[in-house]
Amino acid sequence: MIKVGVFYPQSEKFDWDYYLNRHTPLIQKLLAPALKKVDIEKGIAGGAPGTAATYQTVCNLHFDSVEVFQTAFAPHASAIMGDIPNYTDAQPIVQIGEVKM
Amino acid sequence: MIKVGVFYPQSEKFDWDYYLNRHTPLIQKLLAPALKKVDIEKGIAGGAPGTAATYQTVCNLHFDSVEVFQTAFAPHASAIMGDIPNYTDAQPIVQIGEVKM
Repeated sequence: MIKVGVFYPQSEKFDWDYYLNRHTPLIQKLLAPALKKVDIEKGIAGGAPGTAATYQTVCNLHFDSVEVFQTAFAPHASAIMGDIPNYTDAQPIVQIGEVKM
Repeated sequence: MIKVGVFYPQSEKFDWDYYLNRHTPLIQKLLAPALKKVDIEKGIAGGAPGTAATYQTVCNLHFDSVEVFQTAFAPHASAIMGDIPNYTDAQPIVQIGEVKM
């Protein structure tokens, strides 16, 4: 099992309504049935007292393998990436992680 | 529900055996029963082809609330933080996130 992690650094704009109600359903539709699960969290505080979270939003997309993700994502990459400016001006960091636990 | 995310940037040293078999059981013991779940992933690739993951390791600790986490963590902060140099020289980024999905 792998996760595709998408980390959005703090920025001026993040439209949670659009993100949860339009962008997320879009990726769920386009990446089905390869996409097993979506986790989304809103950064509310940093580790040190009084600090902000480094990432305003963290999203994790769960797939069975890197190959399954790539095969599902490739035909829809433009539609998915092109939708990002509709809800944020942040440039997300993306990485793939192997689930260990 | 909240997650405490611990993101370890790439560094020289990360002892996976120690981390999974000694550090993680230590925090599970010290933070029980407040700690509901631990997710751990190993960064294997960045978002762009041929790039490395920004974070070599990502850990998420799940708690019912920020208050529950802080109450459980405070008495054991030194023991937990003091164990980090035993498995890595990375300086982890820590943040608290509210689970939205």
